[in-house]
Amino acid sequence: MIIMALNCGSSSVKYQLFDWEKKVVVAKGMVERVIIGDSYIVHEVPGRENFKLEQDCPDHKAAIDLVIRVVTDREHGVLQSVAEISAVGHRVVHGGEKFTCSVRIDDDVLNAVKDVQHLAPLHNPPNIEGIEAARLLMPTIPHVAIFDTAFHQTMPEQAFLYPVPYDWYENHGVRRYGFHGTSHLYVSKRAAVLLGKPADQCNIITMHIGNGVSHCAIKNGISVDTSMGLTPLEGAVMGTRSGDIDPAIPAFMMQKENLSAKEIDSVLNKKSGILGITGRYTDRRDVIEHAAKGDHRCQLALDIEAYRLKKYIGGYMAAIGKLDAVIFTAGVGEMGAAIREKAIEGLEHIGICLDRERNAGAMTRKRETLITTDDSPVKVYVIPTDEELVFTEDVVAILDGTYTDHMQFEYSFAKSDFVRK
Amino acid sequence: MIIMALNCGSSSVKYQLFDWEKKVVVAKGMVERVIIGDSYIVHEVPGRENFKLEQDCPDHKAAIDLVIRVVTDREHGVLQSVAEISAVGHRVVHGGEKFTCSVRIDDDVLNAVKDVQHLAPLHNPPNIEGIEAARLLMPTIPHVAIFDTAFHQTMPEQAFLYPVPYDWYENHGVRRYGFHGTSHLYVSKRAAVLLGKPADQCNIITMHIGNGVSHCAIKNGISVDTSMGLTPLEGAVMGTRSGDIDPAIPAFMMQKENLSAKEIDSVLNKKSGILGITGRYTDRRDVIEHAAKGDHRCQLALDIEAYRLKKYIGGYMAAIGKLDAVIFTAGVGEMGAAIREKAIEGLEHIGICLDRERNAGAMTRKRETLITTDDSPVKVYVIPTDEELVFTEDVVAILDGTYTDHMQFEYSFAKSDFVRK
Repeated sequence: MIIMALNCGSSSVKYQLFDWEKKVVVAKGMVERVIIGDSYIVHEVPGRENFKLEQDCPDHKAAIDLVIRVVTDREHGVLQSVAEISAVGHRVVHGGEKFTCSVRIDDDVLNAVKDVQHLAPLHNPPNIEGIEAARLLMPTIPHVAIFDTAFHQTMPEQAFLYPVPYDWYENHGVRRYGFHGTSHLYVSKRAAVLLGKPADQCNIITMHIGNGVSHCAIKNGISVDTSMGLTPLEGAVMGTRSGDIDPAIPAFMMQKENLSAKEIDSVLNKKSGILGITGRYTDRRDVIEHAAKGDHRCQLALDIEAYRLKKYIGGYMAAIGKLDAVIFTAGVGEMGAAIREKAIEGLEHIGICLDRERNAGAMTRKRETLITTDDSPVKVYVIPTDEELVFTEDVVAILDGTYTDHMQFEYSFAKSDFVRK
Repeated sequence: MIIMALNCGSSSVKYQLFDWEKKVVVAKGMVERVIIGDSYIVHEVPGRENFKLEQDCPDHKAAIDLVIRVVTDREHGVLQSVAEISAVGHRVVHGGEKFTCSVRIDDDVLNAVKDVQHLAPLHNPPNIEGIEAARLLMPTIPHVAIFDTAFHQTMPEQAFLYPVPYDWYENHGVRRYGFHGTSHLYVSKRAAVLLGKPADQCNIITMHIGNGVSHCAIKNGISVDTSMGLTPLEGAVMGTRSGDIDPAIPAFMMQKENLSAKEIDSVLNKKSGILGITGRYTDRRDVIEHAAKGDHRCQLALDIEAYRLKKYIGGYMAAIGKLDAVIFTAGVGEMGAAIREKAIEGLEHIGICLDRERNAGAMTRKRETLITTDDSPVKVYVIPTDEELVFTEDVVAILDGTYTDHMQFEYSFAKSDFVRK
């Protein structure tokens, strides 16, 4: 049984094909520059050279059509025909308050996703286009929606409501939703395995640090708080997003530089964060390299990012109560030893004792690594995330009729004998 | 020697007269509804009934003139003549980056305060008007500026710079400044006395919770971080201010409700916070009363406020390293036992062990009280603040030529034999 995972961004389509019986990824890839022109696909099959093909994709349907042609191509593909795909799991960024777990897509579900697209105007529309195109191209198989927000729907009101006029919540849905749910889910379940305890007895802080960055406070296995909010702008410093700032700054700068609401939103999302501080870089490897050469603003970017990570760890520790572990994941979380070190050094007084050597050695996306000392009261692990595996397992379980929700359902990776391939 | 402390708000003038030799407040009071009409003064002299007089004050000069007439009034006053006032200490909200301590006001200082008034458009203009009026009315005596921001000028860059385009800092002064400096200064010096250690060896978190709310991380006696930012909108939940929210919310709501930058700023400052959540109240006593009667949104307001206080304590504990004490001060901090309890209960794992009985008993603005257990690794104290005393001591020290800055200068209240009157 082959399960396809699809992730449609504003100008990209990411895909993965997973062989359920063999438990391996048989192919994955991405179409880039969809809509905007000069689009191309890069197709990866384990053990083969990557295949790149330039092909105009004026919309997401054309891009998904291209994906299907490439994965079924005689020479470069891995399938005989599209009929081998049993189901598709679609990443949907915003599920609002309606979706607390993954669901099989029908017209009602699609309409409900459309109803909340104003909350994620950059993300949900391409997600919706991808679903519509994939349903047209693969009309006979089940399509499943996996929401970034679903994992966080367990948050209590004290964590998800903002101290703003209450009718903003009632009339416009202004509240904290949180994102990166499948990643927080995956690494928190893996952490429970490493801790040797049932997930619902684990208190964990998960730090997803990639291009987007979000943290999650997980108490007894469920999300009780997270750093991203109404939108993915809130929280930690990100590649180009500001994260937390004085909420007076947008209006202040609009008046200083005569910007519209859309323009200030764009600057805070696309020209801020690491890029804003350094003026040049978003990739932490560049930032680390130039900081080492004495670039003050690169050093500042690292200092600010790590300092804010540290404060989130402390804040969520206070929120959760007795903590078992902190998890670092995603690109920077898995590879950025220098940033992890700065974030957790000096936390011995609250029970986190860094092992510098272990931390420096954890620079791979393939291995789960403890980076605290053996006697550290709170453990810190680096755990490579695998969102596509969550997608795949949710899809299969929904096909099988065994799916309940992310709290009850027994994921393969939540078992002690799970081996990552 | 009589020292006057003056605090000019947009529509109010607060004053206090302090007898330096006797170390007592001889009179204090406030003119309300300045400029906006129906203005009046309430004048308080210890041991007498309050004196109220209605008198039109179309500007701050008229209000300060009224103050001088009342304090020198034969029947209700306490002075023979204005000549008995030796100096005036003026509260100035925003000192930008120029002022790291209190200064004697001359034209250069006044111009420098005017240069940063765009950073505090609601606060600095009335402060400036008050200074100009007081210098006209009392031209022969020294006037001193005490800045809300000065105490926080020791913050390192990692704490005061925002992850936004760097030129916003260079061109518009966008950075964290912090406020309530004199209050954080006073209670942190008092805390050092209670801890029996020199202030520069104390690590303290101060929680100023009044109408405005700000927290300060104090390491080795100096401010290393604070929750208010470019403006007093950032940080904790306040009476009518939102505090921390997703920075995308202002632009989101401007587009939803067709608001201008000024209008959204006004809603976030005047219709949010406790008022926004409850829809009705800003006074925590009302909120507590109605929460007890089952009003869900009042309960929510308490839950949200306390939860966010708790997270700030954890965050600053991570930032500071080994912590000695947490201090609650200002109206709600001194009187709001229920809110303090919710904020610090459940923090035993990070070394804070609440003593519920002691906390419930600390409901006065007159006594310094330990509210943790005797064996709590981190102490929590309720310490009534006294900003006017800081004003007065700064003024006297500047007159005497003994003032250096808030780190070096030996305040009377920083000594173990200080007795609060």
